[in-house]
Amino acid sequence: MAEKVRIAVDAMGGDFGPSVTIPGCALALERMPGSHFLLFGDETAIRAELANHPRLAERAEIRHSSVNIRMDDKPSQALRYGRRVSSMWMAIEAVKKGEADAAISAGNTGALMAMSKICLRTMARVDRPALACLWPTLRGQSIVLDVGASIGANASHLVDLAIMGSAMARIILGLERPTVGLLNVGTEEIKGVEEVKAAAAILRESDLPGLEYAGFVEGDGIGMGAVDVVVTEGFTGNITLKTAEGTAKQIAAYLKAAMSGSLFAKIGYLFARGAFAELKGKMDTRAVNGGVFLGLEGIVIKSHGGTDSVGFARAIEIGYEMAKNDLMNRIRDTIALAHQFESGAADPASPSQETAQ
Amino acid sequence: MAEKVRIAVDAMGGDFGPSVTIPGCALALERMPGSHFLLFGDETAIRAELANHPRLAERAEIRHSSVNIRMDDKPSQALRYGRRVSSMWMAIEAVKKGEADAAISAGNTGALMAMSKICLRTMARVDRPALACLWPTLRGQSIVLDVGASIGANASHLVDLAIMGSAMARIILGLERPTVGLLNVGTEEIKGVEEVKAAAAILRESDLPGLEYAGFVEGDGIGMGAVDVVVTEGFTGNITLKTAEGTAKQIAAYLKAAMSGSLFAKIGYLFARGAFAELKGKMDTRAVNGGVFLGLEGIVIKSHGGTDSVGFARAIEIGYEMAKNDLMNRIRDTIALAHQFESGAADPASPSQETAQ
Repeated sequence: MAEKVRIAVDAMGGDFGPSVTIPGCALALERMPGSHFLLFGDETAIRAELANHPRLAERAEIRHSSVNIRMDDKPSQALRYGRRVSSMWMAIEAVKKGEADAAISAGNTGALMAMSKICLRTMARVDRPALACLWPTLRGQSIVLDVGASIGANASHLVDLAIMGSAMARIILGLERPTVGLLNVGTEEIKGVEEVKAAAAILRESDLPGLEYAGFVEGDGIGMGAVDVVVTEGFTGNITLKTAEGTAKQIAAYLKAAMSGSLFAKIGYLFARGAFAELKGKMDTRAVNGGVFLGLEGIVIKSHGGTDSVGFARAIEIGYEMAKNDLMNRIRDTIALAHQFESGAADPASPSQETAQ
Repeated sequence: MAEKVRIAVDAMGGDFGPSVTIPGCALALERMPGSHFLLFGDETAIRAELANHPRLAERAEIRHSSVNIRMDDKPSQALRYGRRVSSMWMAIEAVKKGEADAAISAGNTGALMAMSKICLRTMARVDRPALACLWPTLRGQSIVLDVGASIGANASHLVDLAIMGSAMARIILGLERPTVGLLNVGTEEIKGVEEVKAAAAILRESDLPGLEYAGFVEGDGIGMGAVDVVVTEGFTGNITLKTAEGTAKQIAAYLKAAMSGSLFAKIGYLFARGAFAELKGKMDTRAVNGGVFLGLEGIVIKSHGGTDSVGFARAIEIGYEMAKNDLMNRIRDTIALAHQFESGAADPASPSQETAQ
């Protein structure tokens, strides 16, 4: 891949549109001088913002669209009025046409997923796309997938998730050989569903390059940073992610109530303001900022709808790094190896020496 | 049920054995003067503790066992050496024999579940037992089940969970008609697995007494207290519970680090100590204190292994209330109604007017 990385941006996506996405692009350009931008959306609105960012203006091209996808429309509705003509669709299509190396949108997640699937299609040998997120942990960050792109997964798809997640971890977390865990329940005797056990057997025995299979992980291991990549099926993954976000919000509410209680608590709060600001940053679910669609014929990054320009720049940075480091081919090669192993193995779905750890 | 409620206690269970369980029983007796105790475990150790609690001694009978179930043994191991002879098994068996109305143990969860299933068996018409927990929410408490007793659930079992959970909510949360939600993912177009959709149709159309079906709930709705009873299958439920516990621990670690940072933060901490103590109480996962096995021919309560006597007394109180308010028959009656509806319905598994909300 050339030094130049071309980013397609849905400038209208998110709660704030160009007033956040354009400053976000400007910030991303400062950090990654090799980037070029295709900006999709209302030309007048984009041009007004670009006036404040002359350096970005030099490296950006505007492609007008007057159709914005609304944040709370269902994917089917969004497709009905936004297919081919919306800023979101056009940004994705730029990747398909080879005009851009990655697409970024802070818009409606369901619509972005549906349009990406239809426009880009899944990679050869990958059954279903996945949505991966960066999860803050006590050790730093882990990648958790699938957090809601597809419901249900057989053993082979769980292995695909492990491969896609660890390819992302090598690039985004900078790890040579990330550890991978399969999310599972703790009780020994009923340990997990059959698909998870079968995926464990394949990961253990195939010894795939670029990842280290580390066994099962329980729910409380995610936040502890037990492994670099946590693999689970999309139903459980989506509920798990939202439960963690809900718990963080719940504790923030308790903390706020506690700190506004007694006079002593209020005085304490004043003294510890700096520490609370730091804590708030760590608890902010926007720090995770969206997710990455994996398993498609192209790179699509979902930025959080309510993000600010710093968060949007971070989402662009993720797309930039994944394109620059050739995520797609890394995934392709390892998936091919895994499927070779799976079809060669006697009966990977019911291994005889299953030794759950 | 008579005023007198007989409680069978595995006095040896938990991290601290009789030094916590016996003071816990004494505390429970103060609160619920109608209780009588059967104490299972090492007679010498129990008698030594009972010496400090003369009023409990008058209402308690000791049944000696020299076999304790270790906290980290697998259920199969525990059964091998503990069946029939351990304090845990004997406490459960007292319920089976009709000598006690409820059994309480702070011991090994997997072993307790396995022994309860084998000794008590599941209720007629109930396929699988469930483990229910009390989940602290911004509105108070909700009941979440199944958090790990059984893996996988079809629509009919999800309906059983709704019935069992709302019977528990009526007794423990004191609600006339608790609201019930099915845990699901948020994206409209891929909303949930087939079983969850089919269970939604049955709950919506059968209009069962004693519960109000309130639709789907997402992961972040649990801690907000969106509904009184959250129903999900045991794999997802177990991972969800542990993820929430892990997130609470993670935030507690951030908070501790933030408060021991700068001098100002330390001073702030000193002023706000009371508020922090209150917060710690709310974040303490032991407040949830274990769980309740539902769907068995008898009442078994799991207290948290690391609990203190106050927590153990709370677990006894839950068992006491469930026995006194005839949980078993309440569940039986509603399950019968639901199964009648399910077998009468044309095809509840694929309803034609599915209108997911």
